[in-house]
Amino acid sequence: MCQTVAYLIQGDKEVLVLQDVVSITPEGQTVRLVNLFGEEKVIEGRIRQIDLLSHRITIHAGRPS
Amino acid sequence: MCQTVAYLIQGDKEVLVLQDVVSITPEGQTVRLVNLFGEEKVIEGRIRQIDLLSHRITIHAGRPS
Repeated sequence: MCQTVAYLIQGDKEVLVLQDVVSITPEGQTVRLVNLFGEEKVIEGRIRQIDLLSHRITIHAGRPS
Repeated sequence: MCQTVAYLIQGDKEVLVLQDVVSITPEGQTVRLVNLFGEEKVIEGRIRQIDLLSHRITIHAGRPS
């Protein structure tokens, strides 16, 4: 399976947001994440990178500048 | 492996951009894609959705409005 883990970057901290993510959708100032179990999180921020080899999604906290 | 296929949406067309994508990085008005073989493409547009179950990255062509 290809699910990944989403992390939110807040300053120099990295906070785990959601595991087993299967869908990532930017929506204006937010990013919608859905995982394998249908759990959904909408995060205020923007995607920094999605790395499918290390199974990591990183999201910058806050609104785009 | 978890590599996906990136498609660019131009009007009602969907154009294959890069296969075996392992890294997706939004960079201002563009999206940088890197595949398993180190091939890199920078696409003018914005991510519409990344679906890891169907292994599809869809990118809207053009600059964000």
